[in-house]
Amino acid sequence: MPVLLNLRTVSPFMEGVLQRTLKPRLALRHLSPRGSSSSPPTASRPPVGPRSQKLHTGGDGPEPSPSAAPDRLPFSRITRGDLHFFRKTLPGRVVTEPDLLESSNVDWLKSVRGSSEVMLRPRTTEEVSQILKYCNGRNLAVNPQGGNTGLVGGSVPVYDEVILSTALMNKILAFDGVSGVLTCQAGCVLENLSQYLEGRGYIMPLDLGAKGSCHIGGNVATNAGGLRLLRYGSLHGNVLGLEAVLADGRVLECLATLRKDNTGYDLKQLFIGSEGTLGVITAVSLCPGKPKSVNVVLLGCETFEQLLKTFQLCRCMLGEILSAYEFLDGECMKLLNTHLKLPNPIADCPFYVVMETSGSNQTHDGEKLHSFLEEALASSLVTDGTVATEESKMKALWSMRERVPEALTHEGVTYKYDVSLPVEQIYQLVSAMREHLGGRARSVVGYGHVGDGNLHLNVTAPADDPALLAAIEPFVFEWTASRQGSISAEHGLGLKKRNYIYYSKSSQAVALMAQVKAMLDPKGILNPYKTLPDRLK
Amino acid sequence: MPVLLNLRTVSPFMEGVLQRTLKPRLALRHLSPRGSSSSPPTASRPPVGPRSQKLHTGGDGPEPSPSAAPDRLPFSRITRGDLHFFRKTLPGRVVTEPDLLESSNVDWLKSVRGSSEVMLRPRTTEEVSQILKYCNGRNLAVNPQGGNTGLVGGSVPVYDEVILSTALMNKILAFDGVSGVLTCQAGCVLENLSQYLEGRGYIMPLDLGAKGSCHIGGNVATNAGGLRLLRYGSLHGNVLGLEAVLADGRVLECLATLRKDNTGYDLKQLFIGSEGTLGVITAVSLCPGKPKSVNVVLLGCETFEQLLKTFQLCRCMLGEILSAYEFLDGECMKLLNTHLKLPNPIADCPFYVVMETSGSNQTHDGEKLHSFLEEALASSLVTDGTVATEESKMKALWSMRERVPEALTHEGVTYKYDVSLPVEQIYQLVSAMREHLGGRARSVVGYGHVGDGNLHLNVTAPADDPALLAAIEPFVFEWTASRQGSISAEHGLGLKKRNYIYYSKSSQAVALMAQVKAMLDPKGILNPYKTLPDRLK
Repeated sequence: MPVLLNLRTVSPFMEGVLQRTLKPRLALRHLSPRGSSSSPPTASRPPVGPRSQKLHTGGDGPEPSPSAAPDRLPFSRITRGDLHFFRKTLPGRVVTEPDLLESSNVDWLKSVRGSSEVMLRPRTTEEVSQILKYCNGRNLAVNPQGGNTGLVGGSVPVYDEVILSTALMNKILAFDGVSGVLTCQAGCVLENLSQYLEGRGYIMPLDLGAKGSCHIGGNVATNAGGLRLLRYGSLHGNVLGLEAVLADGRVLECLATLRKDNTGYDLKQLFIGSEGTLGVITAVSLCPGKPKSVNVVLLGCETFEQLLKTFQLCRCMLGEILSAYEFLDGECMKLLNTHLKLPNPIADCPFYVVMETSGSNQTHDGEKLHSFLEEALASSLVTDGTVATEESKMKALWSMRERVPEALTHEGVTYKYDVSLPVEQIYQLVSAMREHLGGRARSVVGYGHVGDGNLHLNVTAPADDPALLAAIEPFVFEWTASRQGSISAEHGLGLKKRNYIYYSKSSQAVALMAQVKAMLDPKGILNPYKTLPDRLK
Repeated sequence: MPVLLNLRTVSPFMEGVLQRTLKPRLALRHLSPRGSSSSPPTASRPPVGPRSQKLHTGGDGPEPSPSAAPDRLPFSRITRGDLHFFRKTLPGRVVTEPDLLESSNVDWLKSVRGSSEVMLRPRTTEEVSQILKYCNGRNLAVNPQGGNTGLVGGSVPVYDEVILSTALMNKILAFDGVSGVLTCQAGCVLENLSQYLEGRGYIMPLDLGAKGSCHIGGNVATNAGGLRLLRYGSLHGNVLGLEAVLADGRVLECLATLRKDNTGYDLKQLFIGSEGTLGVITAVSLCPGKPKSVNVVLLGCETFEQLLKTFQLCRCMLGEILSAYEFLDGECMKLLNTHLKLPNPIADCPFYVVMETSGSNQTHDGEKLHSFLEEALASSLVTDGTVATEESKMKALWSMRERVPEALTHEGVTYKYDVSLPVEQIYQLVSAMREHLGGRARSVVGYGHVGDGNLHLNVTAPADDPALLAAIEPFVFEWTASRQGSISAEHGLGLKKRNYIYYSKSSQAVALMAQVKAMLDPKGILNPYKTLPDRLK
């Protein structure tokens, strides 16, 4: 147990982690640091940004919001010596210019802003290993960063963490034309991988709106769900192998390309969805899909109940070729029209479905789809619809679903929630929220992955509105938890939702997560302030 | 970190675990126990059985085989007081009669025989928790046991471990007709679950030859692969939720029924495939499949190359409806004929394929299959074949594949290997082994899951043959490792293969596994002598 025992002599922070596990309700942030070998205790600096302070402190009340950043932990501060080491290790790939750091210090939603003064851009696993070994020794906190497309403040520094960017780790390492297995570095952009595979008759088993920017390493680190999960399942099943560098620089090579391997514990699973807090993923191997015929359909329904009945019909009549069943409500469609000038290609309806089939036989798929549409129209489940089989038209229909988050950014401030629920209940939350908020919000909209029981609930306001936020939370979490739902279906917990974990996980489970964290990252340098709650119950 | 720190004061065994991690190459079995609070060190007793001693000690050489049982660890011995506690906790469900214990002390292959004197049959999670809490306090080793169908000596006691049987934990806890999600206790027999779901329009996402006996908890604990993995993927993707009791009796409730849940680390993944060494799985929830049309086909091929080309054609023309592509060689067919009187329904061939399609449209599936068969015959990839669509005939064709292991038991002694390799190489190992062994074996046969790159290599002999075994091992492991294969694709490591782990996993990975084990089961009471190697590299 060398790592764990080491902890006890290394830093006062580690005492915090230990106590966090040992003494329920004793928060890290409430510990009094008793000196550090590398840096003195420092005053706290909450994250600042266009609206982060208000969003994160939850208004003017005496109690900070659970999503607010905790105090800075007593990590070391970057010194000239550190920069010297980094520049020697990564010549020409150490960024310290404030203007170049700007976009890496703030998240896509501009809701969390860190103040990191250095970003490292390694190209190899070995370089990542050297960096982490050094940072661990120096007690420097590290924020692993992929495409920085996360929505829960998990991908940006909270304070002055060293940003470890995977942007230059963008090599495809191997592709097996027979099995289709792809092995690549963590910094490959999802869309580039998709294009690479499509040219070879395969497709990535995941697809999401941020594909043009997100990195595959970040996708795996956050267990991204996206649009194809209905058909291909989660990354826990699709990732065949993974390489990660642990906090102390050890390289864990589990980069198998086999579909089956039962030799010992499946350690790679630990890193899938751990948001960079247990190790830095440096490479992955994946098992892609191979459809030959694709159709995309936009449908309109009068009620959500009809939309669900249509889903049942769809599963029954399309079966194995159904690859996506997504929805957006009429409010979302209006936002697409208004802000992005995307016209609605069918008659206006309260609910829309974007569905996709992927199969191996165009004739059969067409016949199945035709029979399904006939039945859906005949039984009045669907009021209007359009089918696309041509690439550009399919993309246009997909954009009706994929660009909703972008349209929402034009509404002012958006409070975003990502829950999963039994499928028959997902829209009830939108209705309940509308009723609960009355006229206080600009809009309350719902869209998401019906096939996976995953709702994206978004509440917008013209500007930061602490009273509105206080009306939304914890209402949304309590509503979800009371129905055994998950308060984060696919976005993760990051900074913003870490303290809400108990709505979906038991105290035993969270305590065990803290043990896992302490085992793999005893000094807590990896993506601090994220995923795990400030206090254990 | 209470658990880990506790370790250091609890038992001399724990010092072993710590040293195992701290000091590479210092074997547990070489530690000198320095007294225990609960029992004195005891002399070692290797497992005995019809042929276990020879099989496991690898002959008359001075070095025991890596698959031989290590010395008994200094766990406590069962006392009258223990039996009193068990009988009070589980009235009428404590088995101590030697004749009733017999079948639980020996594995299906009769290759490992333990000498447990007590088997506990809990009905509830709470009872499992009480038992483990007690055993942990008393330093009593525990062997969790499901259907006892494992092939690597993982499901039986090695010495006098308390057998914790899940046989009475056989309740279906919930079934959601909309999503198809099934939640059940760990002791449900796989075939019973299949029948339950089939009556409701769904099928289990896994199927295997031992379905009539194996328990779902054991399937999950061993990450069983089986016949449907090609279509439905592994249990890491199909298990939605899981409940496990940890060594100290803590209940870890992660029994979600949601397809998506990214709130913290996905702890359930740790238990999938950990062979009962990290916790006792007490309940699971699973995501089933829903095919409406099924076809089973038996094909004959002249060469393995043609069999692989047929697989490529199949993937191309059947695509999403292909649900199994299994093979057996001509030797296996002869064994089926000879020992089980199963006649070959097609012309004799060197290789046979049992393939299955599962889809939603009988007409389309039939058309796809017809086109594929026409093409396969026209291009002479396949020399003969037969198709079944009727239930009893499909079962008959499936039995040609499923009953091969049973036929092999009539051959005398069988040395069994379960490897995964790049699909184009799987039969090369059979050929290489035949060449390597010359006339020393009675037969060298191959069968398995082509679609998953998973070969079952079996070598038979009239009786125990240490010289033959020495010729097979480590040859088979070295051959597999040199091709980046896995030395245990789906059977796990158990007792017999624990020391071969380094052929497929790095020393960093195994060291981390040992840390995980020490974290979750600090006294090492859960299924000792299994999965992890005796010595860390």
